Amino acid sequence: MQEIIKTFDLRVDLAVEARDIVRGVADIEIEGVVETIEEMDNNVKIHTITINNQNGAQKIGKPIGTYVTIQSPPLKINDPYVKEEIIKAMAKSMKVLVGQDLSPDQTVLLVGLGNWRATPDSLGPKFIEYSPITRHYHQYAPQALVEGMRPTCGIAPGVLGITGLETFEVIKGIVDSVQPALLIVVDALAAQNVERIGTTIQMSNTGIQPGSGIGNARHAITQEDLGVPVIAIGCPTIVNAAVIADQAVRKFCLDSGAMYDEIRSRNSIQEIVSFYGGSLGVTPKEIDEIIENTARIMAMGVAVSIFPGISEEQLELYAT
Amino acid sequence: MQEIIKTFDLRVDLAVEARDIVRGVADIEIEGVVETIEEMDNNVKIHTITINNQNGAQKIGKPIGTYVTIQSPPLKINDPYVKEEIIKAMAKSMKVLVGQDLSPDQTVLLVGLGNWRATPDSLGPKFIEYSPITRHYHQYAPQALVEGMRPTCGIAPGVLGITGLETFEVIKGIVDSVQPALLIVVDALAAQNVERIGTTIQMSNTGIQPGSGIGNARHAITQEDLGVPVIAIGCPTIVNAAVIADQAVRKFCLDSGAMYDEIRSRNSIQEIVSFYGGSLGVTPKEIDEIIENTARIMAMGVAVSIFPGISEEQLELYAT
Amino acid sequence: MQEIIKTFDLRVDLAVEARDIVRGVADIEIEGVVETIEEMDNNVKIHTITINNQNGAQKIGKPIGTYVTIQSPPLKINDPYVKEEIIKAMAKSMKVLVGQDLSPDQTVLLVGLGNWRATPDSLGPKFIEYSPITRHYHQYAPQALVEGMRPTCGIAPGVLGITGLETFEVIKGIVDSVQPALLIVVDALAAQNVERIGTTIQMSNTGIQPGSGIGNARHAITQEDLGVPVIAIGCPTIVNAAVIADQAVRKFCLDSGAMYDEIRSRNSIQEIVSFYGGSLGVTPKEIDEIIENTARIMAMGVAVSIFPGISEEQLELYAT
Amino acid sequence: MQEIIKTFDLRVDLAVEARDIVRGVADIEIEGVVETIEEMDNNVKIHTITINNQNGAQKIGKPIGTYVTIQSPPLKINDPYVKEEIIKAMAKSMKVLVGQDLSPDQTVLLVGLGNWRATPDSLGPKFIEYSPITRHYHQYAPQALVEGMRPTCGIAPGVLGITGLETFEVIKGIVDSVQPALLIVVDALAAQNVERIGTTIQMSNTGIQPGSGIGNARHAITQEDLGVPVIAIGCPTIVNAAVIADQAVRKFCLDSGAMYDEIRSRNSIQEIVSFYGGSLGVTPKEIDEIIENTARIMAMGVAVSIFPGISEEQLELYAT
Repeated sequence: MQEIIKTFDLRVDLAVEARDIVRGVADIEIEGVVETIEEMDNNVKIHTITINNQNGAQKIGKPIGTYVTIQSPPLKINDPYVKEEIIKAMAKSMKVLVGQDLSPDQTVLLVGLGNWRATPDSLGPKFIEYSPITRHYHQYAPQALVEGMRPTCGIAPGVLGITGLETFEVIKGIVDSVQPALLIVVDALAAQNVERIGTTIQMSNTGIQPGSGIGNARHAITQEDLGVPVIAIGCPTIVNAAVIADQAVRKFCLDSGAMYDEIRSRNSIQEIVSFYGGSLGVTPKEIDEIIENTARIMAMGVAVSIFPGISEEQLELYAT
Repeated sequence: MQEIIKTFDLRVDLAVEARDIVRGVADIEIEGVVETIEEMDNNVKIHTITINNQNGAQKIGKPIGTYVTIQSPPLKINDPYVKEEIIKAMAKSMKVLVGQDLSPDQTVLLVGLGNWRATPDSLGPKFIEYSPITRHYHQYAPQALVEGMRPTCGIAPGVLGITGLETFEVIKGIVDSVQPALLIVVDALAAQNVERIGTTIQMSNTGIQPGSGIGNARHAITQEDLGVPVIAIGCPTIVNAAVIADQAVRKFCLDSGAMYDEIRSRNSIQEIVSFYGGSLGVTPKEIDEIIENTARIMAMGVAVSIFPGISEEQLELYAT
Repeated sequence: MQEIIKTFDLRVDLAVEARDIVRGVADIEIEGVVETIEEMDNNVKIHTITINNQNGAQKIGKPIGTYVTIQSPPLKINDPYVKEEIIKAMAKSMKVLVGQDLSPDQTVLLVGLGNWRATPDSLGPKFIEYSPITRHYHQYAPQALVEGMRPTCGIAPGVLGITGLETFEVIKGIVDSVQPALLIVVDALAAQNVERIGTTIQMSNTGIQPGSGIGNARHAITQEDLGVPVIAIGCPTIVNAAVIADQAVRKFCLDSGAMYDEIRSRNSIQEIVSFYGGSLGVTPKEIDEIIENTARIMAMGVAVSIFPGISEEQLELYAT
Repeated sequence: MQEIIKTFDLRVDLAVEARDIVRGVADIEIEGVVETIEEMDNNVKIHTITINNQNGAQKIGKPIGTYVTIQSPPLKINDPYVKEEIIKAMAKSMKVLVGQDLSPDQTVLLVGLGNWRATPDSLGPKFIEYSPITRHYHQYAPQALVEGMRPTCGIAPGVLGITGLETFEVIKGIVDSVQPALLIVVDALAAQNVERIGTTIQMSNTGIQPGSGIGNARHAITQEDLGVPVIAIGCPTIVNAAVIADQAVRKFCLDSGAMYDEIRSRNSIQEIVSFYGGSLGVTPKEIDEIIENTARIMAMGVAVSIFPGISEEQLELYAT
């Protein structure tokens, strides 16, 4: 199964989708992988997948660690109650992922990956825009801070194609200089399923692997490489057109009794989507609005968890 | 054939694609439809389809009139020679479509349809941004004009979903007030084929029909309704995801010997793309850049044709 | 006093400033002009100037009608309580200015004047962006409306310099086609005093006079010309550099005992600010943020008054 | 003279203005300061000030080094011949400032200082947008490069107020990782004279001092601190309102025979401009367009000098 995905050069960014592909219809358990699902109010669900050993890691195709998937009804509906529930779910999940309490003087560095000039890839930079940034107040205007606010700083380093710099090169220098206690990296993801666009948030404590995210990091952004814990947060904003086409072929075969053949399907699709280097993304027409809403919610979900005890209203005043 | 397209609620914006669908593999001639192809330098082609009678109109599914399709190698390559050739081809085609010489004091009204907040739909508004606008100089600063510059004005009326106004309502009022000799309307189109994104420009003298363009005009923008000749110019910026999926199914059946069945394919696809109301567009990752380049070239192609004898360098100075 | 202002070709957009200039230090009453000041919570004040006859109109230099000025502490402080108080004050003032109850099926047309590409002039277009637009739902999706929501539509017609169209030409056509019961026009203003930038909102029932607003309308936008009541709403976003320079000269003379001379001050300043045609605006560095905040508050202040009984939270969902 | 400027807390970013202030009307020579003026075509001038020793540095208030000021007629006129002349003048000046030939495999790092959300401060980020970036091609697609193209990379690090990071912290990390042979830093400047906005480009080999530029760097960006030669390039985009007001007072006194008094003028102005922390910038209405034009010209001026032998047309294709 991984095979065909590799052939299309398609990443499976979401652990929950990688798991679906592996477990398949049979839905067999995978040794070394533990799952829990928590239902919250307003149809929000927290699906946690913990990969405990190398067997689990190999099967799922993701490193050992915890992957939290928050699923909600479409955010585009813009329902304030759903928003609050997602923010709560994010804060709750952050606690699990970080695993330790940070003291109020420890710095958190926020990084928004992706290309601000390509709408579906601009989630990370938008996240930074809506996040409270306070580190400069600590040095130059401490009186402007609410009691107990930790230092936060944030950067959107851009992508290799517009800076000529590997994302890792930019982040590494800042980490060395700022020495944060925690790094939170936000990125747009590709999903296998259109329904996940703007409705699924994945959070993990494993960092970002090379080739993940739309921006295609070429160097891992992990605790191992940076010397600081890394929480990676992502939300799908596109589905690769080849994935949708393959699903259509598969479904047609199932419905019509024809024999599905991976290699043939792959080759047929290849010819159709090969133009523009095959990097054809499927997005809903409302993608600009989805990115906007999702970035705001994610910024607030992260903010309430790294600034415990400070109200959303107050936190908004520190967004840049 | 039209059937299946209607079922997906998919428009065929390009006359050249409608013609391909109708003529099919057999490539039979259609009575009432005349075609010519002119090869220009740098791999630029002008394909002209003239629909002469009701039979042709019905078969192709487009009103009587002339449809010029300018095809080029990918504009994203940003080749200045290709650009110049496209501009030349546009100016040449405009002459054919307008059919009469305008006197230098006659006003041309430019309209850029589409939603400036949704990247693939922002081609029309961008076109206006790069077009020379001169009408106000005629009244307030005639000395700032190059000799022989006619009055031009331009507006991007937005889309119903963000203004609450039908595009026609906005344009009609301006036409009545300005009384232009010619109306040029630019819009983003949907294609059946990914290769057409950013590489095909369609120009016609039939105006815009309801339901055409990504912005989905609900009222015709035609000479009949406005009392002034209308040249419609468009460029594909998306392909509907359902179209790509259907092509994949079709190709797979052909390759694997399975029996393609329209209804089944349609139904299978429906389930996969139904989320987000089925309005799932496929665009290349470079869409922002493609829109930018295409809008500039189209603006210049139109400008050199409505300001004969004035250099591109001079015209650029009047872009707003 | 008006003299010198005319010489600099400076408009006095705010009635409250025109009144200050006329009444001067002596603070004498003006026949035909009635004033009231209402103090609200959170330091928000409503200052109402009613010009009742031609004497008052001539003295103040503004047409007969009612001018409400809402003054608040700096909005940039972003205080949610102040925001709510301003929204309340706007709704209250709208009632006074409109003077009649509109029935829930009557349409309101919102117009955002100004140039979206020049930050200090982009208040009107931003206002439209944050206003609830509902007219299209009435025709195409009435089920998506909250009970009692009237039809609203909105347009930012741009400025003469980028469209080649007089603002009036665009609005007139739309008014004729839509036939709204009320027209609300929002524009950025120039003030005499830096402290008014982002802290003062003027609302009047006299429409927009030629030459008012940064965008410099050349044709009146009034009930007389359009056949529909016009509420004009503005907020200062710049002070002309010449005004500040003249104030400095005046203050220096007062402080140092030198004799202030209008003509001389005017001439001295002329030489310094003549570059760039004298159109030198003074704005605070935070102008982008001020515009953003002010546009949102004004949109909500207008929305709660034209959609009585519908909550702010619900109204936000209809912003485009 | 420096006194009053310090009192207003106003920087004199341009060496040529600092020199004017010091030399004054008497226009006496300053020991340790050498000046040359070269007249080029199209009214473009290159004014070079070389500060040779501590006496010169102290008098001018700038570090020892070379300051090239390129003065042109207003760029806003958008004259292509003037543009070409400025580009030529920049390339010529770069040669003088860099002083050594870089080999074609040496990397140049471009840094655009300033805040992309505040128009007058967005010159640096815009510069990066229009600069050719090639470093990634060297590693991933060398065949896409024109023969002889060196590696370039570019970043706009944002300002302390939106990232919580000192500019120096971001740049230092990148310099350490990339190890460029040359660093070119572009920033928006404040001038004493409105006529310099968009018409003056300053280039120096002394780096950026703390407190220079609109963005107000707090840490020097110099060869001394970074271990790599730094060329600083700037263009005035604002004049502080207090400077204009003081000039008006001064001119008025001169014209009317009143006694100008620095302290009094300063105090009078203080009261008028104190709102918004006194950070009131004077900009022409056309500032957005001026920034756009200037950024493009500066990007090309730098590009032709760091990519010798490669045409402007080709270089444009590598802009991001």
